[in-house]
Amino acid sequence: MALKSYTTNDWQIREDRFWVNFFNTLSGVRSSVLIGTSSEIGIHNLAIFNSLVHLGANPPLLGFILRPTTVPRGTYENILKTKEYTINHISEKMVDAAHQTSAKYAEDESEFKAVGLTPQLSEQGKAPFVAESPIKMRLTFQEEHLVMNGTRLIVGEVQEVLLNDALLEEDGSIKVANEHLIASSGLYHYHTFQFSKKKDYAKP
Amino acid sequence: MALKSYTTNDWQIREDRFWVNFFNTLSGVRSSVLIGTSSEIGIHNLAIFNSLVHLGANPPLLGFILRPTTVPRGTYENILKTKEYTINHISEKMVDAAHQTSAKYAEDESEFKAVGLTPQLSEQGKAPFVAESPIKMRLTFQEEHLVMNGTRLIVGEVQEVLLNDALLEEDGSIKVANEHLIASSGLYHYHTFQFSKKKDYAKP
Repeated sequence: MALKSYTTNDWQIREDRFWVNFFNTLSGVRSSVLIGTSSEIGIHNLAIFNSLVHLGANPPLLGFILRPTTVPRGTYENILKTKEYTINHISEKMVDAAHQTSAKYAEDESEFKAVGLTPQLSEQGKAPFVAESPIKMRLTFQEEHLVMNGTRLIVGEVQEVLLNDALLEEDGSIKVANEHLIASSGLYHYHTFQFSKKKDYAKP
Repeated sequence: MALKSYTTNDWQIREDRFWVNFFNTLSGVRSSVLIGTSSEIGIHNLAIFNSLVHLGANPPLLGFILRPTTVPRGTYENILKTKEYTINHISEKMVDAAHQTSAKYAEDESEFKAVGLTPQLSEQGKAPFVAESPIKMRLTFQEEHLVMNGTRLIVGEVQEVLLNDALLEEDGSIKVANEHLIASSGLYHYHTFQFSKKKDYAKP
């Protein structure tokens, strides 16, 4: 298999959109999730993100990337003001509605209603869960890191997790493949995935 | 479907390992990749990471998370000293070898040889690619961000990408599913994935 080499010279001479798609998909697949927030006056905001990263288990920290050009600013503003948000995994049957949250709706319009998903309120927080999501969690904002290109790493601590407990293995692992979640690459491509194998802790 | 709620009270009273696995798998699937580096005296290092995030297309920036407890320190030290590294996607037939790089080998031992993968040198840099990888890239280190729990976000700029150009769509998107890459959740679970659908830019 002869691979072709692309270098900085290539992405300086072709049209921008080509390389935006190229680099958006280059990092492979990852989970797509819906982030739910509430404004101070109670308007529910929902936006799709595909940049979730595990940061640590004790305390349980998750990060996600806010990109300045593509991001609905409502999510960021609500997180800074209310200090909380929900992260909701997306199953196959939710894909079309979830993708539709990336459209630019007016600030006083809730994406839940616009795309046909159901806000589910928690007893503890103001940020809404997505009722249709099979695995979801509520986080409190902890810190943010500004990256050189203007993107931000948003760090939150998990306060509550909602899932079907039949998904749990004895060792605590969650069988995520059992919920028919989707994995995205870039902003437009969605994939299904299946469990293949579990490996042991590796020793030399 | 009645979901069970787990809260901070739960993860303070059960044994640690359970919650480490729980939170490692909670974020769903993501690409697993092999990061290749070279020490100053030319020993090749290879380590598996599952925390790749897209940060931007212009300039092309990718990030990954170095966790203080699980990470082979060789990768981090080599990146700081040589300022370069490769990121290599993992196909299904490479999974066992790729997972085995997570074993703690001696500092003067190359994981390439230990696990049976082939270093492939670039004309431009010292960091080795993985010959068996179907999609791979060379990056230069740009900056790092220290997160509250001691993990680091490492930011690099893509300098070169090697792939089969038959993977490219007209708009620049890479058909990553065509290379039978794997997606992991947590440190032990591997999944296969298939392309499902491509959506359009969403409008209200």
